[in-house]
Amino acid sequence: MDEHHDGFESALSVNPGIPQPAIVDNASLQRFLNHSRKVYGVDDYVEGILQNNRTVLSKAITLVESSLPEHEQMAQNIIERCLPHAGKSLRIGITGVPGAGKSTFIEALGKYLTAKGRKLAVLAIDPSSERSKGSILGDKTRMELLSADPDAFIRPSPSSGSLGGVARKTRETIFLCEAAGFDTIFIETVGVGQSETAVHSMTDFFLLIQIAGAGDELQGIKRGIMEMADLIAVNKADGNNLEKAQLAKTQYQSALHLFPKPLSGWTPQATVCSSINNTGIEDIWNTILEYEAATRQNGFFTTRRLQQSQYWMRETIQTTLINRFYTHPAIEKSLPLYEEKVLNDQMSSFAAAYALLDEYFAGLA
Amino acid sequence: MDEHHDGFESALSVNPGIPQPAIVDNASLQRFLNHSRKVYGVDDYVEGILQNNRTVLSKAITLVESSLPEHEQMAQNIIERCLPHAGKSLRIGITGVPGAGKSTFIEALGKYLTAKGRKLAVLAIDPSSERSKGSILGDKTRMELLSADPDAFIRPSPSSGSLGGVARKTRETIFLCEAAGFDTIFIETVGVGQSETAVHSMTDFFLLIQIAGAGDELQGIKRGIMEMADLIAVNKADGNNLEKAQLAKTQYQSALHLFPKPLSGWTPQATVCSSINNTGIEDIWNTILEYEAATRQNGFFTTRRLQQSQYWMRETIQTTLINRFYTHPAIEKSLPLYEEKVLNDQMSSFAAAYALLDEYFAGLA
Repeated sequence: MDEHHDGFESALSVNPGIPQPAIVDNASLQRFLNHSRKVYGVDDYVEGILQNNRTVLSKAITLVESSLPEHEQMAQNIIERCLPHAGKSLRIGITGVPGAGKSTFIEALGKYLTAKGRKLAVLAIDPSSERSKGSILGDKTRMELLSADPDAFIRPSPSSGSLGGVARKTRETIFLCEAAGFDTIFIETVGVGQSETAVHSMTDFFLLIQIAGAGDELQGIKRGIMEMADLIAVNKADGNNLEKAQLAKTQYQSALHLFPKPLSGWTPQATVCSSINNTGIEDIWNTILEYEAATRQNGFFTTRRLQQSQYWMRETIQTTLINRFYTHPAIEKSLPLYEEKVLNDQMSSFAAAYALLDEYFAGLA
Repeated sequence: MDEHHDGFESALSVNPGIPQPAIVDNASLQRFLNHSRKVYGVDDYVEGILQNNRTVLSKAITLVESSLPEHEQMAQNIIERCLPHAGKSLRIGITGVPGAGKSTFIEALGKYLTAKGRKLAVLAIDPSSERSKGSILGDKTRMELLSADPDAFIRPSPSSGSLGGVARKTRETIFLCEAAGFDTIFIETVGVGQSETAVHSMTDFFLLIQIAGAGDELQGIKRGIMEMADLIAVNKADGNNLEKAQLAKTQYQSALHLFPKPLSGWTPQATVCSSINNTGIEDIWNTILEYEAATRQNGFFTTRRLQQSQYWMRETIQTTLINRFYTHPAIEKSLPLYEEKVLNDQMSSFAAAYALLDEYFAGLA
């Protein structure tokens, strides 16, 4: 550990390999950054990331997650420098309703992958309001084995911000993890909201974890989510549940055939697995590799990534425009006053909006 | 008809009371605006709206729907001038899946209301991609009776733009309709996407139209939509279907009791109706009036409108920031070039986004 990182270490009580709490509010982030005597520059961050220093990686991600303009600028410089070293991982989206056993599944597949020599980063997209609903590390004792695995890196979801903002930061975090040498990235989401679309917009493969229920398996899962799936895995196919899981798999298989063939040229599949018995895990991984080979060959793999870049170019523009507005000193001062007037019916929403916009644009000129 | 409006009249072939096609693309809007010799000012628009001149109202809505900055400015001036005359209607959101018979229902309830002397405006929120799925006037022969009713004004959904943009324009259109003297506003949406949340953010009452299906009625409807409903009406309760509809109503009633009591203090209800037999329509209206009386008395009616204003203040700011960016001449010129670079992998999404942002902010300074 070089001296550059001591300040950060003590501030964060960092223990590499163990997930750290995200520093979410700007005040504590500022304290954390001030704690260190030395001013850490972009070079320090980039160097640390490329050396697979997890402490530095964690801190860089914290910068990415900050909404302060000065951190935004630094974070973008770090990302830009990391980009030439990024892009080489396989990015896998994993979704499923709470109770489907996502964490146990991720631990089982993750351990299988690190045993095979792969380096795995596990990220999550879930805006704060959804954290309690079973998102990653909502319960910090989950994924104990994987957390302690030196070849795995687990990062909780940014715990504040809108879905759009969180998703963008997660995508930027992917690049940092890739530059740090992780060749496999899981993006977990809880499968109850719109976050699946966000995950789909930044991954190569989309895995839907289901469990066998009572009766019709197709109820309760949104058509839109099924349409995104490249593979549906019916989890908890063990003990008394095995037969039901097999039946559910058959039902999903039939349902998948009803959808139009995806642009990838890949026929979505259904399978069963048991995370506690470790059955079906290897098959799932082989299916993912088959998908990768097929879409690399037909060019879809690259096309999709480039289209994702185009989409995120626009997203980056839009969130930056909005972020710069709300963090502008004049607006930070005036916004509460205008909101008060609107809530007291002394001003219309339009008049207040345009007064603030005029103030902002006048301040820029 | 005064001379100010002749140019518009001939350009639009306006026939008051008959829904007009929305002028959606800016080129045709420009042609339409240039067609008139006289330059129409804010005063002309406001005067015409306050006189309940539907031609002028329609044209003002077309201005609101335009995304050209010069129209945006003018539209905002018109809205601002109309606001003191707005706010006095009862705003009712009506949603339901395609096939639930929303149009027939709106026609039945609408005719009932105009017969009672109310003045009704029917608007819709559905972004372009969803238009074919049963949105208002997707089939122009629908609501024939209501279309010809001099006390009803039907306006199709803006046929382009994002959901957020369309929703904002629909909300602005509400104010214009209120200033024109309409005391009852219906906002229709197709009930398959996120548009319900948008409708909920601009209405006083939320009516969900359902039909009796086979078996469990609670499948296929999102919990979130049911939670927003102040009243669920099971439509097509006629002929052989009557018994099934009654059963469905009972099921909805039980389900509604499972939700936490809403902040309005109102207990959501379920009922049956038949738009073709005109049964249950009057009861539905009386329920809506009961709700209005109860929430006006406990203050929720006003509180909710003010909170909606606060929400839309932020929405207006955000869409304006984004719209000004994309319509800036420098960006209109540079954007396609950068998108091309991103798609050809010559530039990262971040570098392209920040290059465009730099260009934009440099142009503003």
